[in-house]
Amino acid sequence: MRPQIVLFGDSITQQSFRSGGWGASLADTYSRKADVLVRGYGGYNTRWALFLLNHIFPLDSTKPPIATTIFFGANDAALPGRTGERQHVPVEEYKENLRKIVLHLKKCSPSMLIVLISPPPVDEEGRKEYAKSLYGEKAMTLPERTNEVAGVYAKKCVELAKDMGVRSVDLWSKMQETVDWQKKILSDGLHLTPEGNAVVWEEVVKVFNEAWLSAEAMPYDFPHHSEIDGKNPEKAFQQQCL
Amino acid sequence: MRPQIVLFGDSITQQSFRSGGWGASLADTYSRKADVLVRGYGGYNTRWALFLLNHIFPLDSTKPPIATTIFFGANDAALPGRTGERQHVPVEEYKENLRKIVLHLKKCSPSMLIVLISPPPVDEEGRKEYAKSLYGEKAMTLPERTNEVAGVYAKKCVELAKDMGVRSVDLWSKMQETVDWQKKILSDGLHLTPEGNAVVWEEVVKVFNEAWLSAEAMPYDFPHHSEIDGKNPEKAFQQQCL
Repeated sequence: MRPQIVLFGDSITQQSFRSGGWGASLADTYSRKADVLVRGYGGYNTRWALFLLNHIFPLDSTKPPIATTIFFGANDAALPGRTGERQHVPVEEYKENLRKIVLHLKKCSPSMLIVLISPPPVDEEGRKEYAKSLYGEKAMTLPERTNEVAGVYAKKCVELAKDMGVRSVDLWSKMQETVDWQKKILSDGLHLTPEGNAVVWEEVVKVFNEAWLSAEAMPYDFPHHSEIDGKNPEKAFQQQCL
Repeated sequence: MRPQIVLFGDSITQQSFRSGGWGASLADTYSRKADVLVRGYGGYNTRWALFLLNHIFPLDSTKPPIATTIFFGANDAALPGRTGERQHVPVEEYKENLRKIVLHLKKCSPSMLIVLISPPPVDEEGRKEYAKSLYGEKAMTLPERTNEVAGVYAKKCVELAKDMGVRSVDLWSKMQETVDWQKKILSDGLHLTPEGNAVVWEEVVKVFNEAWLSAEAMPYDFPHHSEIDGKNPEKAFQQQCL
């Protein structure tokens, strides 16, 4: 009955229903209009995401999502030769993997609204502090991610979206517009604070609105309570429910 | 693929995906295990909720929810002869309506975990202040809800749950255990603060755990990223995805 919006991504998507999270805010925005389903996989890169495609988005689905956000890259951009090496995916392969994901979704439903979200910026100092808080002096001294490299992946992501005629959010650039983004937007140099989550929510809603998926323009699923006559409630429900 | 948990109720359910909301927290608790769908209808009482039953919970569904929370009563308990009269439902009818909802859900799926949630307490002073903030001196002087009456409905809700062998959360009693609950738990004398939302989340998770729906005991939908071999990722996905 209710259309579905799927959020497909890594930990930044998986954690998006925590307090102040962008996924929860999106669910609230589309309250009584669309269901927001979170398909976030902490630690995953695009290479591993490919294994999930047929399961999360089966091609024979009779009711594919009306919209999907694809939000990978933070792990793909982990540097080779460092602690996150296992997650690293070369940037050209990252782009090709994103292309495969978009092609699969288009095959799943040609009318699906597809939004690519670039990885956010990285605060190397914040990552270092976070590592120290976990491992003390044993913490790695070389960064496992840099902001510069994250930017290269973000650029590829936006480029691919243009190539394929789908929409995108350049989070890497957008978030760096905030003064003191390192602390305001990021909680551990990589993941998002509530303020950072608010940026994702705002940007996604903006892109959804610019496309055709405006919550304001969508009808409520059932009558607003103010339209229900206390003495004759049947009337309000007649069209939809009787 | 993923089991569904449905939250059926009034505004306190509809708003449960706002920042710190109990619905969003529940979605986070069951992340990668179950989808939490919000079916909250602000202003609705149980009489109006009955019109929605066949639509939200069709009897011929091949995939009914594994669990549903039923959270009505705050509007049913609006006093007759006051500003909220339109929403008032006599307490015996409230109980019968809840019975109809439970019976429908049991018919929909005999194995569904059904949890009745009682209305929260009411802070009459808080309601008065809220009305004044909206309407100034024109605000009604007589309360449209009282804590005492909300308690009568809460008692009926818990009673009905026992009658029908389903689980319940007595929120009205539980919330009044908090010192200064009037301000700590309630934002406008009726709706919940983040602290109030946390109480609902804790109580619902407790009841789910006491039944058979413990998130900890449920498997992740796909491998945890730490189980994926960077050089041979196929292996981790072999069982579930290849």
